[in-house]
Amino acid sequence: MNKNARRYIGVIGGYTCSSEEARIAEVVGRELARQGAILICGGEGGIMEAACKGAQTEGGISIGILPGDKRYTANPYVMIPIVTGFGPARNIIIVRSSQALIAIGGGYGTLSEISFALKFGVPVIGLNTWNFSRSDQTDNSIIRAGDALSAVQLAIELAE
Amino acid sequence: MNKNARRYIGVIGGYTCSSEEARIAEVVGRELARQGAILICGGEGGIMEAACKGAQTEGGISIGILPGDKRYTANPYVMIPIVTGFGPARNIIIVRSSQALIAIGGGYGTLSEISFALKFGVPVIGLNTWNFSRSDQTDNSIIRAGDALSAVQLAIELAE
Amino acid sequence: MNKNARRYIGVIGGYTCSSEEARIAEVVGRELARQGAILICGGEGGIMEAACKGAQTEGGISIGILPGDKRYTANPYVMIPIVTGFGPARNIIIVRSSQALIAIGGGYGTLSEISFALKFGVPVIGLNTWNFSRSDQTDNSIIRAGDALSAVQLAIELAE
Amino acid sequence: MNKNARRYIGVIGGYTCSSEEARIAEVVGRELARQGAILICGGEGGIMEAACKGAQTEGGISIGILPGDKRYTANPYVMIPIVTGFGPARNIIIVRSSQALIAIGGGYGTLSEISFALKFGVPVIGLNTWNFSRSDQTDNSIIRAGDALSAVQLAIELAE
Repeated sequence: MNKNARRYIGVIGGYTCSSEEARIAEVVGRELARQGAILICGGEGGIMEAACKGAQTEGGISIGILPGDKRYTANPYVMIPIVTGFGPARNIIIVRSSQALIAIGGGYGTLSEISFALKFGVPVIGLNTWNFSRSDQTDNSIIRAGDALSAVQLAIELAE
Repeated sequence: MNKNARRYIGVIGGYTCSSEEARIAEVVGRELARQGAILICGGEGGIMEAACKGAQTEGGISIGILPGDKRYTANPYVMIPIVTGFGPARNIIIVRSSQALIAIGGGYGTLSEISFALKFGVPVIGLNTWNFSRSDQTDNSIIRAGDALSAVQLAIELAE
Repeated sequence: MNKNARRYIGVIGGYTCSSEEARIAEVVGRELARQGAILICGGEGGIMEAACKGAQTEGGISIGILPGDKRYTANPYVMIPIVTGFGPARNIIIVRSSQALIAIGGGYGTLSEISFALKFGVPVIGLNTWNFSRSDQTDNSIIRAGDALSAVQLAIELAE
Repeated sequence: MNKNARRYIGVIGGYTCSSEEARIAEVVGRELARQGAILICGGEGGIMEAACKGAQTEGGISIGILPGDKRYTANPYVMIPIVTGFGPARNIIIVRSSQALIAIGGGYGTLSEISFALKFGVPVIGLNTWNFSRSDQTDNSIIRAGDALSAVQLAIELAE
């Protein structure tokens, strides 16, 4: 692979989250920026805000793909707001614009993003996120990571 | 409730499916039409085609909300094709246009539809479909039905 | 062509309009229903409401493709509301789901619909609607009709 | 206004264009980068490619909001591809993500973008682009610029 190629990594999770989850997301955002990756997220609060804050600390680029039609709804750490007005359909754009996704916790919106990622073949690294199964057979498509730094490492490797 | 109000019920599931699943979907489509409900689906093959076929048998109205930009991609039993060109983002339109959803089996696309339904508060009746959990806590938001007729009954009651 | 094939005709125009425009739209909706065509529109007020009212009078089927995420925003004459939540991006779905469009007056939203129709090759019949030109060369792609009944006739012929 | 605020300027026009139009678009892209503005465009060829090339020459940031679902369809000068898979519905995202738009020539797709911009109140600076009128009354909402540099100047002022 091209060592100099830019990587686009998505971070997904709830617009509300525990302080522990926010801490993890901030470490993820910081480490992505350190490694030169561009952060893609939904641009709102919670996990998204913490990840963007981390990226900003290290001078990284963060993209916030907003559900609403107003630029000012982006969290203050989003560098480039993409204003869609498409509501949660913007989840699909987050997934498609990412070469790998890191899922931290999350609600049904995050579950929809994981579904689309697995459908499209985008790798998903999970940190304490959803499990699912069909006909009593567990789906092991999510790659589980133990902590923020190893999640970033996995995401960058899989995005290559 | 108004006894005469029209009901809009979505049927979701894979564009490929087992013959047993297709049989169930056809019974669902037929029963929905008998009860005067309008069938909303994705307009493609598999579960969607079987449900539309069932609806047509009973003279019901079926709407197929297509992912592609060509009308002719609708299955032959769709009465009214809605041509979106939005790819799987059309899943959201299926969910929002339905007052209740019946999920039969399904893959990741169906899982995305279930996620959006639970996010938006649209009741989901499941027939041998996905299970999911977070932090080892099972999510019991899907209402499980034992067979096609009771799934339709539940959907119509919950849509009221 | 198949004499029995269903035709899907879109009616576009402002969600506010003059009473004269509303009268024209109602005649259009009525005549479409008489001819067995299914009416596709944006489901809101103004031109859309008048066209749906006309269709209802004659027992026709009307589809309202709504920009918002609430079913109850449909005008009272919409038979089947399609709830997108995609804002004005739903204009594209109106255009793609129609085999021909009748444009009555209209603002910038209508101009966007005409643009997409001409891009996609969907015939547009105009009743006192937009004109446009590039490099001082008038674009004559809109087919101008003199009144409501001839607009419907043209739309149905071109949809065949 | 905040002198240090980032500005987001869209450049719209055909994916094919004359060499003269491409030259203008490249100057526009270059000047936007010099002034520290972030370039938003559709990420394809023609006007979009020329503008991105200009931005890259000056080390600027360019965002390409792609209609398709493949990252590699972006022109080689796009720094950050946003992969929508929404077809021409992505035009709306270009418009909403821009604080002002520069329209260079263009076909029906560009006309749709101008329509949405005027609907949403986003200023449009035109360089030899569409004219339109209703009821024989010319619509003068597009601000006409004489050349590339004055178009950029106007866009940046109006975006403030």
